[in-house]
Amino acid sequence: MTQNQNIADMADTIRFVLEIDKLKGILRKVKPIGDLRYENTAEHSWQIAVFAMSLAEILELSIDVNRAVAMLLLHDLGEIDAGDKFVFAQDGWEERRAAELRAVERIFGIAPARTAKFMLSLWMDFDAGETAEARFARAVDRSMPVLLNLSNGGGSWLENGVTFERVTARVGPEIEAGCPELWGYLKEQLEAARHKGFFAAS
Amino acid sequence: MTQNQNIADMADTIRFVLEIDKLKGILRKVKPIGDLRYENTAEHSWQIAVFAMSLAEILELSIDVNRAVAMLLLHDLGEIDAGDKFVFAQDGWEERRAAELRAVERIFGIAPARTAKFMLSLWMDFDAGETAEARFARAVDRSMPVLLNLSNGGGSWLENGVTFERVTARVGPEIEAGCPELWGYLKEQLEAARHKGFFAAS
Repeated sequence: MTQNQNIADMADTIRFVLEIDKLKGILRKVKPIGDLRYENTAEHSWQIAVFAMSLAEILELSIDVNRAVAMLLLHDLGEIDAGDKFVFAQDGWEERRAAELRAVERIFGIAPARTAKFMLSLWMDFDAGETAEARFARAVDRSMPVLLNLSNGGGSWLENGVTFERVTARVGPEIEAGCPELWGYLKEQLEAARHKGFFAAS
Repeated sequence: MTQNQNIADMADTIRFVLEIDKLKGILRKVKPIGDLRYENTAEHSWQIAVFAMSLAEILELSIDVNRAVAMLLLHDLGEIDAGDKFVFAQDGWEERRAAELRAVERIFGIAPARTAKFMLSLWMDFDAGETAEARFARAVDRSMPVLLNLSNGGGSWLENGVTFERVTARVGPEIEAGCPELWGYLKEQLEAARHKGFFAAS
């Protein structure tokens, strides 16, 4: 590789890392524990990456954990163009998926070709949700807002009129498929929270 | 391992991931690009992890990149108890290091023993800065606020009266030692910024 190519690749890598700075400004529907503000997608991505690393230490996972962590760090970058979408929204998911794909193609495309190809493959793996790594990563991603809402007395569930049944139907199967031990824990917590009034009335 | 131990480990893992939520409330001295607020340490940790992944795609690194990424995700957790310390502070660094070690021992100690041991070893590796992974990770960590300040017309350098000479003397050697290609790029950017008035007068 020529020296000029090396310099161009470094400049494009920096342009990419500055472009993704925008993820710090994308707000989600849940709040950090005890905070008044909504969390942004950058800090969320950090927390689920550490969560995945932590789970890998206690569970007998036969997956490439580093690949799952990398997916979690990148999977929400499309929100820079497409915004956050509330997990309990009823429709528009196909259009949403297309918009996020367009977004990540643009954003990864700022990085050098090799980086863009690598990151897009991670994103598509997560999006398809078929490999064991993607299923585990999706389970971790789905669980985090549940844990925050449980710590915030209901949080976005109460704010948005979401019932217990809707939560368990929407997030349960995906968490159980990717990390059954985690779902075993969460199911009990959700049952307990139901009796504390953390959900909208059914 | 018994079923009861598995349940206890899952509960402790969840307690840990909820404890580290506090990192979202630790404010640093730099701001996201074009933003009025200061960035927090959780979103910073995310950005440098992705930055490290990106650099690994274009550079011929003979290191375990996944280990460097894991270090970057964890290395600032001590700030939950010890707060952020401005990189250009003149003294108090030894006390600071001890306070951060006490903090991460407390915080990792919430997680199951195996997780705590693994994470503390990553933290100590980063802190010592002797392995190639730690040197690379430290270079990435040091570079990110430089890139944000360059994108913000001087940012925390002007706000805190930091000169060009102090920036290059404080961050230059560490970035060059861990990622010489990155320092080659930044040095030129810093020189250019000097002529644009991004630093306090010498």
